[in-house]
Amino acid sequence: MNLENVLESIKPLDKHSMDLCKTHLDSLTKPIGSLGVLEDLAIQISGITMNSKPIIKQKQAFVFAADHGITEEGVSAFPQEVTKQMVLNFINGGAAINVLARKAQTPVTVVDIGVNGDLIIEGLVQCKVAHGTKNFSKEPAMTREQAILAIETGILLTTEAINRGVDLFIIGEMGIGNTTSSSAIVTALTNAPLEDTVGCGTGISTDSLQIKRSIIKTSLEKHKPNANDGLDVLSKIGGLEIAGMVGVILACAANRRPVILDGFISGAAALIAQSLSPLSVSYMIPSHSSVEPGHRVIYQKLTLHPFLHMNMRLGEGTGAALAIHVIESSLQILHEMATFADAGVSNKNL
Amino acid sequence: MNLENVLESIKPLDKHSMDLCKTHLDSLTKPIGSLGVLEDLAIQISGITMNSKPIIKQKQAFVFAADHGITEEGVSAFPQEVTKQMVLNFINGGAAINVLARKAQTPVTVVDIGVNGDLIIEGLVQCKVAHGTKNFSKEPAMTREQAILAIETGILLTTEAINRGVDLFIIGEMGIGNTTSSSAIVTALTNAPLEDTVGCGTGISTDSLQIKRSIIKTSLEKHKPNANDGLDVLSKIGGLEIAGMVGVILACAANRRPVILDGFISGAAALIAQSLSPLSVSYMIPSHSSVEPGHRVIYQKLTLHPFLHMNMRLGEGTGAALAIHVIESSLQILHEMATFADAGVSNKNL
Repeated sequence: MNLENVLESIKPLDKHSMDLCKTHLDSLTKPIGSLGVLEDLAIQISGITMNSKPIIKQKQAFVFAADHGITEEGVSAFPQEVTKQMVLNFINGGAAINVLARKAQTPVTVVDIGVNGDLIIEGLVQCKVAHGTKNFSKEPAMTREQAILAIETGILLTTEAINRGVDLFIIGEMGIGNTTSSSAIVTALTNAPLEDTVGCGTGISTDSLQIKRSIIKTSLEKHKPNANDGLDVLSKIGGLEIAGMVGVILACAANRRPVILDGFISGAAALIAQSLSPLSVSYMIPSHSSVEPGHRVIYQKLTLHPFLHMNMRLGEGTGAALAIHVIESSLQILHEMATFADAGVSNKNL
Repeated sequence: MNLENVLESIKPLDKHSMDLCKTHLDSLTKPIGSLGVLEDLAIQISGITMNSKPIIKQKQAFVFAADHGITEEGVSAFPQEVTKQMVLNFINGGAAINVLARKAQTPVTVVDIGVNGDLIIEGLVQCKVAHGTKNFSKEPAMTREQAILAIETGILLTTEAINRGVDLFIIGEMGIGNTTSSSAIVTALTNAPLEDTVGCGTGISTDSLQIKRSIIKTSLEKHKPNANDGLDVLSKIGGLEIAGMVGVILACAANRRPVILDGFISGAAALIAQSLSPLSVSYMIPSHSSVEPGHRVIYQKLTLHPFLHMNMRLGEGTGAALAIHVIESSLQILHEMATFADAGVSNKNL
C-alpha cells in the first residue's frame, strides 16, 4: 500500500468492542477501574483490534538507523560514525534494545534506512533511501519524494510483518544528531518555545545546548515548515529513521494493530503521523516519559499519558520494550481473572 | 530470628559492589546514565546483595490477609466478609495478583494472619494472630505482643523462603478496611494533614470520606500513638497484614534481599519498618504510584521514587508484580549488554 491508501484506510477505534471489554472488566473481582492503566490498555487494544478479548501472540521491534547532516554543526556528544557502529552492535545483539527486547521475547529487526556509509551486514535490512540527510541548517534535510519513500519503507516492512502474524509493534531508532531534528519537528508542529523542546540529547554541554537551540531557531526561520503539512515538516527538518517510524505507525493504524511509542525521537514521528492522520493517535500506546524535555510537549499534543517514569534517554526502542510487559499483563488480566459471580465474592455494598 | 535480632542484623548497602556495578554500567554501549532507573536498580541490588553482578533466580510473593475492626464504622465500600472471599479467590488463582504474578513467574503464598473467620483451605498458610483487629476508634487495634508476633510471622516466612533460595520478594495484602488503618499510620508517622493522607480506598463516597477522616482524627487524638515507636503506632491503629509485611521487609533487609513495595497499604508497612530500622529503606524497591493520595506522602518520607504510574488502587501486590519485569530487565542489562570496547563503538567525543 502506498502512503495515500494507508491514510485513507485509517478508521476510528471500534466502540462496540471497547464497551464489551469494559463490561467484562467491571465484572472481575476488583473495585471498578482499580487496575487503572491496565484496564485502559485492554480497552484500547479491544477497540484497535475489534475484539473484546484480544490476544497478542507475536511481537516485533523495528529499529531504524539513519544519519543526520546537521551533525556537521556540532550538535551531538557522539561522532556520526557511532550510528554505523551501533548498527553492528544491534545486529550482534549487544545493545540495550537487544537485551530488553529479548526479555520481552520480541525479535528486533534493524533497518538501514539512511546510514551514511555502506553496510553489508548479514541480518541488516537494507532499505537505504539516502546516505544520511542533508545539513538542514543549510538546505532541506531531504526531498518530499525521499520522505514519502522512507515512510513507505516503514509501511512495507510493517505490512509484511502483519502478513506473517505480528500483532504488536514497537518502534525505535538510532541516529547521531536525531534529537536536533526531533526538537525542530516538535517546535514546528506545536509552536512550543525552544526552552521546552530542545534538551541535551545524549549529553551535550550547556554551551552546545545554546548552539543547538540557535541552529534550530534559524533553520525554522529559513525553511518555514508548514505545520499543517507533516510531509513538509518531515522533509525540511526531519530524518529518514523518523520517516520510517511514521510509516510503521500509519501502517499499524491502517491495519488495526497497536504500536508502542518509545522516547523523544519516536514521539516526533508520532507527531508527524498525527499531522498526516489525526485518527492514527488512537492506535499509539505510550510507554515512558523521557528525560528529554520536549517529550512532555509531544505527549500533550498527542494527549497520551506515559506510564513508565524511568528517567531514560536512550531511544532504540528501549522504553517501548519495557512497556510490552505491561501491555501483556493488561490482556492477561482480561483473560484470566475471575468474575465476582465465578469466585463467589460479594460486590460493593454502596 | 526474633524481631530484636533482625533489627540488629540490618546493615547499610555495600558501597564497593555498587561502585563496581556503576563502573561496569558506564562501560556499556550507551551514554552514561541514559538507562536511568534501570541503572539505579542494578546498582541498588548490587549494594543489597554485595554482588556487583547480581542474579535473580527465584521470586516470591507474600499476600497477607486480615480483617479490621474499624469496618464497623462504615469506612469501606465492601463488606468485611469480602476479605475471606478474596482469600479463596487468591487460592483458586482468580485474583489480579495471581494473574500478574503468574505473568512474572512468581509464586504467590497467601497467609491468613488475621482473617475474621475460620478458613480451612488447602494451600492457605495459617498463621492467624487474631480474628481481625479491634475497632481502633474504640480501643487499640491489637496488643503490642500481637504486633510483634505478626511481624515475626512475616520474618519466619521470609527466612524460610530465603533458605529455599528465594532472592526477590514482593509484598501484598487483602483486608477490607485497611486503607483506614494505613491512613492513620501515615498521619501518625508523617504528621501530614488528613486531606493528604486519607482517600477513597476501594471507592467510598464523599460523605463516607468525611466520616473516614473524622474517625481517624478522633482515633489519633484518643490513642496518641508515639511517632518514635513504630510498634506503638502499629499496635494502636495498625493491622495484622500490615505487621506481616513489616516482618517481610525487615527480614529482607537483615538477609540482604531486595523487597518490592506495592501500593498504599504496603507503604504504611514500609513506614513502620523505617521507624523500626531506618536502614531497612535501602532494601526497599518502590513500584507504582497509587491513586490513593497518601501514597505520595509515604514516598516522600521514604525518599523513594515510584517508576510505574498506572492509576492503580487495588493492592494485593499487583503493582509490585508489574515491577518485577522492570527489575529483571535492569539486571539483564548488566549481564548482557556489550561494552564500548567489545562492540568497537566510539565513546563520547566531548
